[in-house]
Amino acid sequence: MKLKARILGLEAGGKLVALLNREDAEDLGVSSLERVRIAKNNREAIAIVNTATKLIERGTIGIYEEVRAILDIEAEEEVDVEISPLPKSVHFIRNKLRQRKLTYEEILEIIRDMVRGNLSEIEIASFVTALHIFGLDLDEATSLSRAMVETGSTLEIDKHPIVDKHSIGGVPGDKTTLLVVPIVAAAGLTIPKSSSRAITSAAGSADRVEVLMPVSLSIDEMREVVEKTNGCMVWGGSLNLAPADDMFVRIEHPLSIDPLLLPSIMSKKKAVNAEMLVLDIPTGRGTKVKTIGDAELLAKDFMELGRRLNIKVQCAITYGEQPVGYTVGPALEAQEALSVLMGERYVPDLVDKATDIAGILLEMSGMKNGKTLAMEILKSGKAEKKLREIIGAQGGNPEVKPEDIYVGEETFTIRSKKKGYLLWINNASLVEIARLAGAPKDKGAGVHLHKKIGDAVRENDPLFTIHAERDIKLQRAIDRLKESYVLGIGERMEMLIHEVREPPIPKKMFMLER
Amino acid sequence: MKLKARILGLEAGGKLVALLNREDAEDLGVSSLERVRIAKNNREAIAIVNTATKLIERGTIGIYEEVRAILDIEAEEEVDVEISPLPKSVHFIRNKLRQRKLTYEEILEIIRDMVRGNLSEIEIASFVTALHIFGLDLDEATSLSRAMVETGSTLEIDKHPIVDKHSIGGVPGDKTTLLVVPIVAAAGLTIPKSSSRAITSAAGSADRVEVLMPVSLSIDEMREVVEKTNGCMVWGGSLNLAPADDMFVRIEHPLSIDPLLLPSIMSKKKAVNAEMLVLDIPTGRGTKVKTIGDAELLAKDFMELGRRLNIKVQCAITYGEQPVGYTVGPALEAQEALSVLMGERYVPDLVDKATDIAGILLEMSGMKNGKTLAMEILKSGKAEKKLREIIGAQGGNPEVKPEDIYVGEETFTIRSKKKGYLLWINNASLVEIARLAGAPKDKGAGVHLHKKIGDAVRENDPLFTIHAERDIKLQRAIDRLKESYVLGIGERMEMLIHEVREPPIPKKMFMLER
Repeated sequence: MKLKARILGLEAGGKLVALLNREDAEDLGVSSLERVRIAKNNREAIAIVNTATKLIERGTIGIYEEVRAILDIEAEEEVDVEISPLPKSVHFIRNKLRQRKLTYEEILEIIRDMVRGNLSEIEIASFVTALHIFGLDLDEATSLSRAMVETGSTLEIDKHPIVDKHSIGGVPGDKTTLLVVPIVAAAGLTIPKSSSRAITSAAGSADRVEVLMPVSLSIDEMREVVEKTNGCMVWGGSLNLAPADDMFVRIEHPLSIDPLLLPSIMSKKKAVNAEMLVLDIPTGRGTKVKTIGDAELLAKDFMELGRRLNIKVQCAITYGEQPVGYTVGPALEAQEALSVLMGERYVPDLVDKATDIAGILLEMSGMKNGKTLAMEILKSGKAEKKLREIIGAQGGNPEVKPEDIYVGEETFTIRSKKKGYLLWINNASLVEIARLAGAPKDKGAGVHLHKKIGDAVRENDPLFTIHAERDIKLQRAIDRLKESYVLGIGERMEMLIHEVREPPIPKKMFMLER
Repeated sequence: MKLKARILGLEAGGKLVALLNREDAEDLGVSSLERVRIAKNNREAIAIVNTATKLIERGTIGIYEEVRAILDIEAEEEVDVEISPLPKSVHFIRNKLRQRKLTYEEILEIIRDMVRGNLSEIEIASFVTALHIFGLDLDEATSLSRAMVETGSTLEIDKHPIVDKHSIGGVPGDKTTLLVVPIVAAAGLTIPKSSSRAITSAAGSADRVEVLMPVSLSIDEMREVVEKTNGCMVWGGSLNLAPADDMFVRIEHPLSIDPLLLPSIMSKKKAVNAEMLVLDIPTGRGTKVKTIGDAELLAKDFMELGRRLNIKVQCAITYGEQPVGYTVGPALEAQEALSVLMGERYVPDLVDKATDIAGILLEMSGMKNGKTLAMEILKSGKAEKKLREIIGAQGGNPEVKPEDIYVGEETFTIRSKKKGYLLWINNASLVEIARLAGAPKDKGAGVHLHKKIGDAVRENDPLFTIHAERDIKLQRAIDRLKESYVLGIGERMEMLIHEVREPPIPKKMFMLER
């Protein structure tokens, strides 16, 4: 069927989509979400069909940007449109809905079609939901990891051992990476660290690091930095490592499900050819993994998946019931990490965690007394020196000082109404407040804690300060305080956690960071 | 945030959708698929957010037709856009993903938001997938049925008893309704029959009936017809009975799943206030329900659901391994049914099935010897007379004769290469051929069988004729014949069904008709 192209001037989120008048679609014998082959001269694209009853005239076809780019087509040009069979991957997804276990070849076909834009959001949503409900077994997790590597770029570096660290996320203010990478690189190991931006949190590692240096590097630039300095801290999004993952995230986020945690993380480690990995699993109330038992089960899965992918994995189950250090929000966190590396600020839990994790990596690589060695590298200033090398190599200012970092100047400080001890902090509320204040988009926004769990508190002591770049956002965060329980002060934990007088509507905080 | 409206001139499939530049979305604090409240003067709409990186400039908001209509907005007008909380129904869907059983109130909230366009395709797809995987229990099926009635129109008629018949579908050529409705109406019962158009089949009841009379009636017109004639045969799509179902179908079809079979059917019966229902469950190879045991389980569920909805249900488990009668395709079927009602053609299985089903309804209403009575009404010409009354009342030509009906004149007849008996017919292949020939869009397209199972066949006897309205479609159907096994001729069933030499890729035929 010959149809006239109508260029819509809209993107379809990476998918290949065409819009047909319903009558034309019926004549072609295609329904919504089936496929057509669109041809012009010797170019062709397989597009997913959407149908319209009005606004797309008979005889025309609405072309989104992704298809336009492939066909190199202009308005009013005529294209040839025919029905195209469903991609095989759709049949494999349907099999998954019937609880069939998928083979590597089937999973690769699904991931490949997804990356090419050949699967609709409905199909991906259904697939992700089925994975969530049935769970992934380790064979499927392995296949998914491999398929996600196969369909993306990889980093090839000949400087061994190549190590990496990763946190599954869920604890606010976790700027450990900013210390671990320079310590480990200073010890002579190769650590090509890529990170993500915040999705549901107040700051992702890439957001924090970006305060100190550019992070949107190409994979070639990344290799250069690592070859020069042993390490890097870059944003994964510009590297095309496992691009399927970004598409999964688009679907998982609105559904608040995260079935692909394991393959998502491991595929990115495999794509940089990591040989050893420390995986941080923050655990406890207010984190993703609530109990130590669950953390151990997850650790076991990660280690087994690592074994299958030929990555030696050790896990660190860490305490996550309050933020790491005193700050939450990109600039505040970068400032805190830099000060600690310079020996200007004393932040015991951050230093403890960073030297633990760096220490494990040093020992995995054959060195002795990892934690002590990591602490020496930190205290001697070698880690700071290494950080500045990396900053320079990535195009930042290697002379940056903590006071150069801009933090939001609209502030509001919450003070204690009574004396006692700080007994608990609600991570989720803290993140919500930091986000309302503008984080992670406004890098200077966030929350600065003045007390941590266990600290003595006098009446009227400052508890935390909210920073924002704009007054309206500060106000938004302050307004939320009234309905939030951010932290608890008392002499001892009180026995009653929460009264339930009528059936509650549970509002689960969802953390997709990984 | 103030944004300038850009009218996209596109529909979003009934959903309320707005398109934001990603930077603006981040400033608002919304992600893709979260919601914004868009206000102009004193009108407002809650819209689902899609984000674009190019093509939607900062400071503008792309407005689809559904939102434009609510806000009554023009290009370049400024609107006020703020973040809006997630609808409660999204939390309920998330609970379903965690296998929580949903209450009536929760289901009603989901269905209501769906009908209003407040749920995204991703959310609906995930919900439908979860229902498919977990299955519906009868409580949820009841709640869904009631919620689908609650959110649509209902037919109020004061002429009892109100009866109905329905087939779950899956057998081609099933024109039983065209006989049952006039028989039952002639017997004095009220039968306000609504039907659907074909989705995956070659003809839905509405498609067949439309050959004889208009079917796109409003609910008021439907009531008038029923009050005048006791019966009607109209298309459900224009009545707004259980409109949620149309949205479910949009999602179920591409996924090839049908978890809502029970509530979908029963909600439409409840919406016309049916008091008694015969449910036809065609069973056997090539139908939806393969075994009599499965049919009985399904019958049990329908009867129990009926009891909860206050509809007396009886089921007819019928033989479905070949088409009903000799024809498949809207016009061919309408012609066959009309001829049978006029006593001009002898089609034993069609007459048998129609009088069985009509007979059950007559007996449920308290009459004796239902089948005999139904046969009398048919043979006496009373049913034909009643059909012509209904045709007239719905605005068709009550004098219509079989030879007035246009059937496709491009034909191709397949003849037998050997002698023997017709041993089996492949329903799925037959439907595929009829659809390739143009059915249901081209009403005159379809397949005319010359033999049915058990008939003796001589060499060169015609087996079936393909009808098409256009040569190109006839050719498409003929081309497919080469790869299809439509029917089998032999002296007796051969023992080998099918050799499997390498792992097969199963191509399951999916039937969404219901």
